[in-house]
Amino acid sequence: MEALGKQILIELYGCDAEQLKKVEEVEAAMLAFARESRATIISSHFHQFNPVGVSGVILIKESHFTIHTWPEYQYAAVDVFTCGDEMDLERGLVLFKEILQPATVELKEVARGKMVFSK
Amino acid sequence: MEALGKQILIELYGCDAEQLKKVEEVEAAMLAFARESRATIISSHFHQFNPVGVSGVILIKESHFTIHTWPEYQYAAVDVFTCGDEMDLERGLVLFKEILQPATVELKEVARGKMVFSK
Repeated sequence: MEALGKQILIELYGCDAEQLKKVEEVEAAMLAFARESRATIISSHFHQFNPVGVSGVILIKESHFTIHTWPEYQYAAVDVFTCGDEMDLERGLVLFKEILQPATVELKEVARGKMVFSK
Repeated sequence: MEALGKQILIELYGCDAEQLKKVEEVEAAMLAFARESRATIISSHFHQFNPVGVSGVILIKESHFTIHTWPEYQYAAVDVFTCGDEMDLERGLVLFKEILQPATVELKEVARGKMVFSK
């Protein structure tokens, strides 16, 4: 039993509220995360909410990065969905945490597409 | 302890491979899912892979819908991330399953942004 994809759900608590409000900063942080993880970027789409908050997605050859920010709670929810073995997510995460400096990070990994592959 | 968001990870097994290959059909199914769930759509972005497979995201006011398809395994991985109480995801899921007709569906719900809210 193997899985086609791997998804990491990342909870970022205690971020800087001002940073989470700015779509340019949030997109730059996510693009840095994706590039440093050696993802192959297809397209990037970010949206600024009124009054505050940012949602965004980066489609990558290996699947996706998404983020939703709640500046009023200094919280951001990030997802990274990948397939294949060519990315280096740990490397990307080091840089991403340096940029956003959350007080607490929680990670949950979920296997996607569990299959019985014939050898 | 409450949560800011709710994420549903949806595993669709035994879908029609031809349907999962076509970006137009996959996007139409996802838009129907989002609309029937009463989501407020911000933007929709879908990508056709060569040789096969589709990745796509719909950004919504309430967060996002994403999909990645593996036609060669008749499998699709769908995520719905929502916040607030105004959507009706069960209603949307009924229509979505009618369109894609998976043999098996597995759902996993994950709370995102667990906070202690003051009353």
